[in-house]
Amino acid sequence: MRTVVVTNPPRADAASVDTLARYGVATVHEAMGRTGCLGPSIRPVHLGSRVGGTAVTVLSWPGDNLMIHVAVEQCRPGDMLVVTTTSPSTDGMFGELFATALQHRGVRGLVINAGVRDVAELHAMGFPVWSAAVSAQGTVKATPGSVNVPVTIGGQVVRPGDVILADDDGVLCVPRGRVPDAIAASKAREEKEAATREAFRRGELGLDRYGLRARLPGMGIEYVEYAEYVEYADHAESGA
Amino acid sequence: MRTVVVTNPPRADAASVDTLARYGVATVHEAMGRTGCLGPSIRPVHLGSRVGGTAVTVLSWPGDNLMIHVAVEQCRPGDMLVVTTTSPSTDGMFGELFATALQHRGVRGLVINAGVRDVAELHAMGFPVWSAAVSAQGTVKATPGSVNVPVTIGGQVVRPGDVILADDDGVLCVPRGRVPDAIAASKAREEKEAATREAFRRGELGLDRYGLRARLPGMGIEYVEYAEYVEYADHAESGA
Amino acid sequence: MRTVVVTNPPRADAASVDTLARYGVATVHEAMGRTGCLGPSIRPVHLGSRVGGTAVTVLSWPGDNLMIHVAVEQCRPGDMLVVTTTSPSTDGMFGELFATALQHRGVRGLVINAGVRDVAELHAMGFPVWSAAVSAQGTVKATPGSVNVPVTIGGQVVRPGDVILADDDGVLCVPRGRVPDAIAASKAREEKEAATREAFRRGELGLDRYGLRARLPGMGIEYVEYAEYVEYADHAESGA
Amino acid sequence: MRTVVVTNPPRADAASVDTLARYGVATVHEAMGRTGCLGPSIRPVHLGSRVGGTAVTVLSWPGDNLMIHVAVEQCRPGDMLVVTTTSPSTDGMFGELFATALQHRGVRGLVINAGVRDVAELHAMGFPVWSAAVSAQGTVKATPGSVNVPVTIGGQVVRPGDVILADDDGVLCVPRGRVPDAIAASKAREEKEAATREAFRRGELGLDRYGLRARLPGMGIEYVEYAEYVEYADHAESGA
Amino acid sequence: MRTVVVTNPPRADAASVDTLARYGVATVHEAMGRTGCLGPSIRPVHLGSRVGGTAVTVLSWPGDNLMIHVAVEQCRPGDMLVVTTTSPSTDGMFGELFATALQHRGVRGLVINAGVRDVAELHAMGFPVWSAAVSAQGTVKATPGSVNVPVTIGGQVVRPGDVILADDDGVLCVPRGRVPDAIAASKAREEKEAATREAFRRGELGLDRYGLRARLPGMGIEYVEYAEYVEYADHAESGA
Amino acid sequence: MRTVVVTNPPRADAASVDTLARYGVATVHEAMGRTGCLGPSIRPVHLGSRVGGTAVTVLSWPGDNLMIHVAVEQCRPGDMLVVTTTSPSTDGMFGELFATALQHRGVRGLVINAGVRDVAELHAMGFPVWSAAVSAQGTVKATPGSVNVPVTIGGQVVRPGDVILADDDGVLCVPRGRVPDAIAASKAREEKEAATREAFRRGELGLDRYGLRARLPGMGIEYVEYAEYVEYADHAESGA
Repeated sequence: MRTVVVTNPPRADAASVDTLARYGVATVHEAMGRTGCLGPSIRPVHLGSRVGGTAVTVLSWPGDNLMIHVAVEQCRPGDMLVVTTTSPSTDGMFGELFATALQHRGVRGLVINAGVRDVAELHAMGFPVWSAAVSAQGTVKATPGSVNVPVTIGGQVVRPGDVILADDDGVLCVPRGRVPDAIAASKAREEKEAATREAFRRGELGLDRYGLRARLPGMGIEYVEYAEYVEYADHAESGA
Repeated sequence: MRTVVVTNPPRADAASVDTLARYGVATVHEAMGRTGCLGPSIRPVHLGSRVGGTAVTVLSWPGDNLMIHVAVEQCRPGDMLVVTTTSPSTDGMFGELFATALQHRGVRGLVINAGVRDVAELHAMGFPVWSAAVSAQGTVKATPGSVNVPVTIGGQVVRPGDVILADDDGVLCVPRGRVPDAIAASKAREEKEAATREAFRRGELGLDRYGLRARLPGMGIEYVEYAEYVEYADHAESGA
Repeated sequence: MRTVVVTNPPRADAASVDTLARYGVATVHEAMGRTGCLGPSIRPVHLGSRVGGTAVTVLSWPGDNLMIHVAVEQCRPGDMLVVTTTSPSTDGMFGELFATALQHRGVRGLVINAGVRDVAELHAMGFPVWSAAVSAQGTVKATPGSVNVPVTIGGQVVRPGDVILADDDGVLCVPRGRVPDAIAASKAREEKEAATREAFRRGELGLDRYGLRARLPGMGIEYVEYAEYVEYADHAESGA
Repeated sequence: MRTVVVTNPPRADAASVDTLARYGVATVHEAMGRTGCLGPSIRPVHLGSRVGGTAVTVLSWPGDNLMIHVAVEQCRPGDMLVVTTTSPSTDGMFGELFATALQHRGVRGLVINAGVRDVAELHAMGFPVWSAAVSAQGTVKATPGSVNVPVTIGGQVVRPGDVILADDDGVLCVPRGRVPDAIAASKAREEKEAATREAFRRGELGLDRYGLRARLPGMGIEYVEYAEYVEYADHAESGA
Repeated sequence: MRTVVVTNPPRADAASVDTLARYGVATVHEAMGRTGCLGPSIRPVHLGSRVGGTAVTVLSWPGDNLMIHVAVEQCRPGDMLVVTTTSPSTDGMFGELFATALQHRGVRGLVINAGVRDVAELHAMGFPVWSAAVSAQGTVKATPGSVNVPVTIGGQVVRPGDVILADDDGVLCVPRGRVPDAIAASKAREEKEAATREAFRRGELGLDRYGLRARLPGMGIEYVEYAEYVEYADHAESGA
Repeated sequence: MRTVVVTNPPRADAASVDTLARYGVATVHEAMGRTGCLGPSIRPVHLGSRVGGTAVTVLSWPGDNLMIHVAVEQCRPGDMLVVTTTSPSTDGMFGELFATALQHRGVRGLVINAGVRDVAELHAMGFPVWSAAVSAQGTVKATPGSVNVPVTIGGQVVRPGDVILADDDGVLCVPRGRVPDAIAASKAREEKEAATREAFRRGELGLDRYGLRARLPGMGIEYVEYAEYVEYADHAESGA
């Protein structure tokens, strides 16, 4: 493995990041054609945050946080730190001292495919974290890795400078080049959702609004009264 | 698979549901002879709710929420929606638009053996959810399934019209025909627990209250002073 | 298995326990040379507690809480109850009645490598719990086990009388004989962390503070401008 | 829980069981509309068996094999024993002594949603086993359960007398009343598969054979030459 | 953590080890009162071995096999190497080069609570391995650990010189000081099992042989004819 | 998501693929600086194969194998099919009919981050498979995906035309542009391993061969006689 620190990657535009962040993870995910989720195993350490930033990526050895120290220097205001390890690890690689250093640099939060600790202190500081684990287990600073190379978490590639959105639903990556499309599509999606919400509040059904009802018979879906179904099921199960 | 929507299943009596809901999941579970739990992997998305309702059941294809749209129309006030998939899935099949539609119909909450999203919005709406995962990953509406057929979650069969109780301890199913017995047994259990609570507050021990102390010797349980045990253990381990 | 109840094990000194508890799990863990964590699968049932106590240990059969009843009698003010099972189990072995009995005896909390229930009630009582699962599933009182024998959770041995520290980062065991050293080392660690925190607030980097920068070239870590790296990576991947 | 031993449940017809067993798990599963699989966590302890039999079901307490002893007496030639526990367990509840007793009674194999042991001996005896775990951990005989009540494994209900099919692909349950339909559909499915196999050997594509090709454009699937795609992707990712 | 290499620990007697190994893991486990199993997650990489040896223990940093190199020198003929890591890891810490070195020293096999690689070569060499994972992922040699200190795997403490037994059912630890008792109890257990096997071959039931039948009514177990049960269950479920 | 079928991606050179395949997964992984492993959860369905080929990649919807049908047409002799899903799935998406079609086209094997079925038939055909699961559960052909786009499995990006190596240790991806370097480095690595193997057979220690012994004291590793350590440990644990 070439172990490199890539400097000065271009970042997605700051105003665009803030615009996207307002839409939230689920809406932007849908707007981008249901892509970009970092999967269900990366969860917020505390519920209640919604942030967006530009990725500074870290690839670390398991049980070793050396490269997070290296990465701090590469961070700028508006960034999100995105950390993964070369093999699965739950160790608490990150805590409040790192968060202190990152807040000083204007970093907005952490996404880590491993463990964190100092959970109470991170909450008190207002530094939001999404992680795969919480663990007090500490780490060493012995083995090299890389900063600002493409990394993958949950089947999704994250490149330095990509937009990272994170809220209670998890974490989303929007590739830097897709940001303008994502904004436009998210705006459209939000408007459509607002209209649907209003319709649902009035009692309209998704079956009708999305034109599903007419397709059901062609799919082989039958409507059966309960009494009739019970009789059928008794026969189907026991042959009685 | 016959893909059916079973209409108008009989529901457990609404007053009985409310009575059971007050006892909470753990008490009713014990009262029913330790049956009915949907297992430890179905967890509340937010702590702090306790609800009961009558089951409307959904069996969906993984990655597909078509049948939830079909199920909404079958829901009535006092129902709980209970969703599972034909194979394991973590996708976010359900979010705040569905919750909006269900609240309009008087549905009290969701139990889903898959993922949900819009977690912050669901909390703000006061719509309680118990799920196996949280994931922003969206789904399609392409493959048929069934509504109001028996489904199983966590080794427990749930039939339409059964009582679903859910709180911070998880989810419980009380079969419709067992509701009267469950109420009587829960009342008795609660009274017994209240007396035990009072006794424990006074310092009585479970060993005495449950008559366990006399049974210990027959089970081969010995009481040994620490110093004596340490000497035995040293020998047992090392032969020293 | 010899099934024994070991009585009157010596406990770590109460004042020392309280001193250690103030430092928190992560700091004491580091101070002890990164040892003693009970691992990432034992999590607080509710966030926001930080406690310390002396271990009363329980080894139970899965699905059976008889030995917790036996253990209650062995508990004294300042203890923490530490429970594991002879094989993996998620059952809800412990609830608010046990917590009532333990609070009466001055016990400070529970660590359990299995499940608990009555989560809402435990929170209302202010009885903190760290567990591997939450489950309403109840248990029997049929099969013997042991109290106050060494047990292991998450690769860590816990002996009766050891110090148990628990907070939002998880659970730590400090062997009784190592308490004085742990206090001294934690004090030193905390002072060092305070100085580092102050330095990080001023913008100093860990790279410099820990003397890492000079070691990076020897580890083969190169700094590369983004444009240069992209060119290299394109070639490395596709040979273009 | 009412703890009952249900005697003399009607079994699926023996000749039908043998007919179904020849088709194998995957074929019958497809023939039944993709239903009945006990899921990916129940695996053969040794590869290379294919059996079918009628279910004798057991619901046991975790860590307790009392009810397997009770169930042996209820077994007849041509049965398969199907065991699950009231909460998740990996204990080795079953070994070669049980297999000896079951072989004497003409039982064809075991499906268990828990652990087994004596794996080498079971293989030497030719007694096939599908399980969720292998573990030497032994169990007690202390807590009641039930025999020949409906049980659920992997989201599938198994009733006494149902047909259990098991091979290297896992385990399938065919409800007793659906056996005639399952045989007819499996025969049709096998014939169709044979024709498809022959076509595929000649080089025909599934795209054409199943009429999929014409549907691709309507689904939004585009065909793009590699060079063109690379250019698009570069832009989509980095905006370059 | 004090990082030590403990030299020349006393080993269990070689003849005793061989005697125990013949009984197999499950029998010795039962003979020792159902203790000592290293749990269901440590599995043989290939089925078909049964070995015993004296433990040389290794505690390594995750992603780092330095201490296995240190441990090789401490190994003697008749030993088994037992490796765990300070936090969970799946990396392939061990392969055929290590096995070559260990075979030269007369070591009988490996038990590792992490990953191995060179699986085909290990099989060809006849060097048996029990592990928690198989992974090609390599490791570094950067961080210290310990050799021949007590380690825990699967809730079981292993001390240097203890007897390690391993076969297709998993791995067992017999503390050095308990070896004579374990041999005597295993012999008795095997004789009892042989008699039971013979009885089961003749058709005797465990219900009778173990005196269980008389206890069933007292446990509340009822025998019910199928038809009667079906009627009861219908009522219990639906109230019909 | 743009759903595309990318046609005619350049493949790694066939002779180079065969050269790499002979070295095996673990050796090439080390030679490439410990990169490229698809992780421990992708396992061979049967032990005993070692193959290499060029990747044709598939990104499918969970529970849907439409895109595998599309991909077959894109396969050429010497390819390996590499399949993943947009969210986690265990369904049996692939069986012997697909293998028949792929063998006709000269495809060498399958790597799938989901489930397969027809395990016995695949073995009989000599078509090797590496998968995340085995499941009889069938799938539909309803939702679009992509062929020959970059996919990620186990934290590793696989691009169409990359070299896929697979054996009993798992699966490795060698980016197309790195093939010449990988061959050179693998040859060097194999020669070094052969020399080490020979040295280890003669009794040389890794401690000496890799120059580790001299570094141990600087790492704080102490050698301690057993008796001395036991005394220390007793004190450290209990303060006695």
